Amino acid sequence: MLQKIVLLGSGNLAHHLGRYFYKNGIIISQIFSRNKMTAQALAKKLDALVDSDLDQIVRKADAYILCVNDDSIKELSTQLSEILANDKLIIHCSGSKPISEINEFFINRAVIWPIQSFGAKSKIDWNEIPFFIEATNSCKDIVEQLCRQMNWKFHPIDSERKKLIHIAAVFANNFSNFNFIIAKEILSTLNLGIEVLKPLVESSQENIFINGPEESQTGPARRSDTKVVQMHLKELSKEFPHFKELYKEYSNLIMDYYKTKK
Amino acid sequence: MLQKIVLLGSGNLAHHLGRYFYKNGIIISQIFSRNKMTAQALAKKLDALVDSDLDQIVRKADAYILCVNDDSIKELSTQLSEILANDKLIIHCSGSKPISEINEFFINRAVIWPIQSFGAKSKIDWNEIPFFIEATNSCKDIVEQLCRQMNWKFHPIDSERKKLIHIAAVFANNFSNFNFIIAKEILSTLNLGIEVLKPLVESSQENIFINGPEESQTGPARRSDTKVVQMHLKELSKEFPHFKELYKEYSNLIMDYYKTKK
Repeated sequence: MLQKIVLLGSGNLAHHLGRYFYKNGIIISQIFSRNKMTAQALAKKLDALVDSDLDQIVRKADAYILCVNDDSIKELSTQLSEILANDKLIIHCSGSKPISEINEFFINRAVIWPIQSFGAKSKIDWNEIPFFIEATNSCKDIVEQLCRQMNWKFHPIDSERKKLIHIAAVFANNFSNFNFIIAKEILSTLNLGIEVLKPLVESSQENIFINGPEESQTGPARRSDTKVVQMHLKELSKEFPHFKELYKEYSNLIMDYYKTKK
Repeated sequence: MLQKIVLLGSGNLAHHLGRYFYKNGIIISQIFSRNKMTAQALAKKLDALVDSDLDQIVRKADAYILCVNDDSIKELSTQLSEILANDKLIIHCSGSKPISEINEFFINRAVIWPIQSFGAKSKIDWNEIPFFIEATNSCKDIVEQLCRQMNWKFHPIDSERKKLIHIAAVFANNFSNFNFIIAKEILSTLNLGIEVLKPLVESSQENIFINGPEESQTGPARRSDTKVVQMHLKELSKEFPHFKELYKEYSNLIMDYYKTKK
């Protein structure tokens, strides 16, 4: 069972994850981060040591959890491979990076990816978030045990399949978010804010998870109302030509989807 | 003040709207609909007459509200113009159709468009939904009075501006819904359901309305992480080539958006 960990990073994920570990009886031996301010703030909350010099890293923790940005995983794990014993458990938390980003010097490598955005003020419902985990055989049991210990919903996955989950999340989450940037830009020309769409999208989103997105699809493309689609495209050409291609692409996909389904 | 209305149509919108009018003291004189089953069910709830023959339409109501599909508004209002007096108030409820769909024979024409999806089982928060209204000058006051009487949040609008609101809603609501169809298709190849995305999108959507969509944007395109974008496109080419163009279009828009913003 994992008892002592070192957290590398002091951003939002490190804050959220660290506090949850601490609350659930895990000792955070040390916060390692180049950002002294945020690291010290977090270390104080977790009764942890804090350091920004890799030479000072605690050698005897049970696991080293990298809560750093995607592009730092490879380099940081390589630096660690020069300091730590090769049987230390190294875990990263990235959705886009495969397990192979962790230097192969380490026998015990793992990824713990919670599908969630960790904003500074987000309220995280730890028992609801799905965790996708991948681990080398030698540490699979201990990683799963950690998830059970934390009461996490977890799904074992490999890096290839994780890619697809990440792509699905990009569509549903990132691209949908951008749709609100588009909506905001359009509405602002009428001196309206996106809050006029709030009741609509809230009830629609509820519907997606109750009845499924296929049943919830509405709008001109769903009805194959090509007249309205054409009229919208003409309208976009005038004032928002940069969004025209996207509108066209979606409308075609939606029309094709329901034609094929019939 | 409006006291007696006729509802034309007996679908979800007619049901929701009719029940709210009735609850708030408006007399529903008659439900007019070709679908006898749903019309009778609704008429019973609203103590209303029911008919499917236009000749039998009640001549003396204060307003005739068309809760019919978009393409029927023109024809139905033309048929009504042969039966009713030209000072009768005719209202349609469509987001995509302009006020001019109502036959010009009628002096008092109006549109009342609630931005909301009216599913059979939807719980409607009538005091939160924005209503966009348009009316000929001769009936503007009475339509606004109706909105106030019903405690609706309403915004006067013209048909040109309404088009833009509708386009914004299509992006935020319809296209985002389709993103979940895409996500579902991708996840199903891994035997996963879209519920794995629920905590993520729920917290993100909350964030959109608190901090704004520009602040909430995350993901590879937001970080201009072209390596991950390319990797995702390669992955889509293999298994989901039909979604590749959409992914590319979005990623370019997002990258351009934040480049310009800097």
